[in-house]
Amino acid sequence: MISATRRLALGFGLALGISTLGIGASAQTPLRNDNITLEEVLAAQRAWGEGLVRIATAHREGGVERGRAVAGEILDGAYGYAAGPVLFKPTLTLAPQTFRITREGALAYFAGGNPAFANDGGFAFNGWTRVEVENAAIFIHGRTALTQGNVRLFDGQGRVTTVDKSWGFHRDEAGVVRIVLHHSSLSFTR
Amino acid sequence: MISATRRLALGFGLALGISTLGIGASAQTPLRNDNITLEEVLAAQRAWGEGLVRIATAHREGGVERGRAVAGEILDGAYGYAAGPVLFKPTLTLAPQTFRITREGALAYFAGGNPAFANDGGFAFNGWTRVEVENAAIFIHGRTALTQGNVRLFDGQGRVTTVDKSWGFHRDEAGVVRIVLHHSSLSFTR
Amino acid sequence: MISATRRLALGFGLALGISTLGIGASAQTPLRNDNITLEEVLAAQRAWGEGLVRIATAHREGGVERGRAVAGEILDGAYGYAAGPVLFKPTLTLAPQTFRITREGALAYFAGGNPAFANDGGFAFNGWTRVEVENAAIFIHGRTALTQGNVRLFDGQGRVTTVDKSWGFHRDEAGVVRIVLHHSSLSFTR
Amino acid sequence: MISATRRLALGFGLALGISTLGIGASAQTPLRNDNITLEEVLAAQRAWGEGLVRIATAHREGGVERGRAVAGEILDGAYGYAAGPVLFKPTLTLAPQTFRITREGALAYFAGGNPAFANDGGFAFNGWTRVEVENAAIFIHGRTALTQGNVRLFDGQGRVTTVDKSWGFHRDEAGVVRIVLHHSSLSFTR
Repeated sequence: MISATRRLALGFGLALGISTLGIGASAQTPLRNDNITLEEVLAAQRAWGEGLVRIATAHREGGVERGRAVAGEILDGAYGYAAGPVLFKPTLTLAPQTFRITREGALAYFAGGNPAFANDGGFAFNGWTRVEVENAAIFIHGRTALTQGNVRLFDGQGRVTTVDKSWGFHRDEAGVVRIVLHHSSLSFTR
Repeated sequence: MISATRRLALGFGLALGISTLGIGASAQTPLRNDNITLEEVLAAQRAWGEGLVRIATAHREGGVERGRAVAGEILDGAYGYAAGPVLFKPTLTLAPQTFRITREGALAYFAGGNPAFANDGGFAFNGWTRVEVENAAIFIHGRTALTQGNVRLFDGQGRVTTVDKSWGFHRDEAGVVRIVLHHSSLSFTR
Repeated sequence: MISATRRLALGFGLALGISTLGIGASAQTPLRNDNITLEEVLAAQRAWGEGLVRIATAHREGGVERGRAVAGEILDGAYGYAAGPVLFKPTLTLAPQTFRITREGALAYFAGGNPAFANDGGFAFNGWTRVEVENAAIFIHGRTALTQGNVRLFDGQGRVTTVDKSWGFHRDEAGVVRIVLHHSSLSFTR
Repeated sequence: MISATRRLALGFGLALGISTLGIGASAQTPLRNDNITLEEVLAAQRAWGEGLVRIATAHREGGVERGRAVAGEILDGAYGYAAGPVLFKPTLTLAPQTFRITREGALAYFAGGNPAFANDGGFAFNGWTRVEVENAAIFIHGRTALTQGNVRLFDGQGRVTTVDKSWGFHRDEAGVVRIVLHHSSLSFTR
C-alpha cells in the first residue's frame, strides 16, 4: 500500500500538504496512480543516453561479444518489446529493413552481427561517451508520453552527431518506463 | 502554449527545477499533459460539497425556483452529462428510478419538481451548510480518477448525514473536471 | 470485421481484416492495443458472478476451509489488490470497517473467519447459485471501464437479493481484467 | 456484432447487440467510450493524405492564395494545435526551424509565404495527386494511437516520394481525431 504522500514523493519529489486542503484526504490515503510523470519521462530519456554509452564502453573495453551482451540487457530494460511490437525507426537503417518492430531487429541495429540484417554494423559501437537531449515539446497522456527534439551524441574524439528524435514512452504496472515508439533521423540538408 | 513549469504549477503548485536534471528540457519546453492530478480530484470533491451548499442556500434564501435554477447550473458544472451518460446512483432514489443516467433525472433528484420523478423531493433543499469528504482510497488513470470514502453532510441544526460514496472524475480537454460516476449509499446497519 | 474486433481484444500480432479500407495497413500489421473493450468488461462481470457461485459451491460441498481457499483464489483473479489499493465498499460491511482497501479485508468479507473483522460472517457462503447483472450505463476510458446497475443474487431456495452496484475494471498488461472499484449497496427503501 | 463495433466508435447512446452475451446488458445500455479505435486511426491517416491532395489541387486550380486558405482549413481539422503544442518534425525543414510546435510553423511548412520561415516553399504545393500509407506497426492507448511506416506521395508526373513517418493521433471529446505527433524523414541512404 502506498500512501498518497509517498507516491507523490516518488513521482514528483515533493510531499503534498494535502491536509491543508482541508477536505479530509489525509496524508495516508492509499493511492494508486497509473499515470506517467514528466520526471519519469526525463529520467527515461537520460537512461537511454546512459545505456548507449554503457554499450559503447562495454564494446571498447570488452570487445564485440561483451558489447553485444550489454546491448541486449540495455534493450530489454529500455524498450517495450516484451509487451508487444515497438515502433522503432533507427537513424541509419536501410530499406527494406527500415523499421525494427521486433527485438531481434533492434539488437541487430545497436550491436550488429546478425546475418539477417547484413547492413547493420552496430550503431552503439561508435565510441559514444555522452548524450544530450533537447526537447522541443512533450505530450503526456495516461501511461504514455511523447517527446520530440534533438539528441546529440558525442564520441571520444569530440565529434558530435545530431539527430531529430521522437520518442513514445509507456509506464507499465510495475512503474517501469519503456520506449514504445522511437523515430530518429538525420537532419535534412539541401 | 503552456510551458512545462507553468503547467506543473497549475497541477501541483510547484515549479519543477527541470534544468537541474541536466538533460536539456528547459523550463520553457512546451508541454501538453492530459492527465488528471490528485489536486484536481480533491478540488473537484470540494467543489461538489460547495455546490450542494450553494443550492441549499439559494433555496433557503430565494425559494424553490431559485434553488432549482442554481441546481441546474451546479449540475452542468460538476457532472459530465453534456459528454454522455453519467453513472449516477444517488443516496435516496427508489427503484425503478434508482439510476440517474440523464441530466433530467439528476436535476429531479437534487431539486425535485419533476412529475416524471414523483418520489423526488429535492435532496439539495435540506438546509445543507457544510460538507466533509474523507477518502478511503483513490485510483488515478489517465484523465480519470476514482475515489471512495465517507461524505458527511451537515445542516443548520447540527444534524449530520453520513454516506458511503464512490466518485469517478474525468478531466476534459479544457481542463475541467466532471463527475462521470457517482454511487452514494446510506451505511448498512443491522 | 467481427474477427478484427475479436482479435483486437486479444492484443497484437494479429491479422486485421482491414484490407478493404484500402490504405495499406496490411493483414499482418503488428498491433498493440492496451484498451479495454466492452466485451472484456461484460466477461469480467460474468466472471465475478461465476466466481461467487464457485465459492458458495466449494463451501457447501467442501466446508469452510475449502470455501475460504477458493475465495482467496477467486479474489486474486478478480480484484487488483496485487497492483495497489482497491476501492471496495461491500454490501453488508459495518462502520468503521466499511471499506475494504486491502486483500485481507476483502477476503474477510467474502469468507469470514478473521478475528480482525469480527462482524464478517462470509458473504460468499450464502448458497448462491446464480448471478444476474443488469447494467444501467457503462463508461470506458483507456484500460479502465466503469459500470453501474443492478446485480441479482439467487440462492438455492429461490430467494433473490438485489443490490445497486458500481464497478471499476482495469485491464493489465497481460490482458487480465481486474476490479479496481466496487461499490455495492442495498436498495434504499422508505 | 459489426454494428455494435461501428457504433462504439461513434460514442454512446447506442444500441449494443450484446444480448447474446446473456448477462443483462440490454440492447439499450447507454455507453460512453472515450477510446480511439483502429478504424478511426486508419481513417485519420487517409484523411491526412486526402487533405494534402486537396491543398495541392486548390493551389493548382486557384493559385497560392487559395492553396494557402485550404491549407489552413486542412491543418485545423487534422492537427491538434488548438488544444496545445503539436510534436511536428516535417520532412524537409532546416535547423534551427526543424520542429513546428505551433500552428504558424506548420502552416508555413505546408503553404510557404511566411517571412519568419524563409526556407519554406510550401510543401503541399508540389502537385500531389495521391497518397499511400503502409503501416509497419500500430500502438493504441486510451484516446491516443501511434503509427509508424512508409508514406508514398505521388505527383501528377508519376513521380513518387517515399518518407518514413510516425504519427500520434488523439481522439477528442467530440470524437474528432487529430494529430499530436508527426515525425517525417527521407529514407537514409549511403
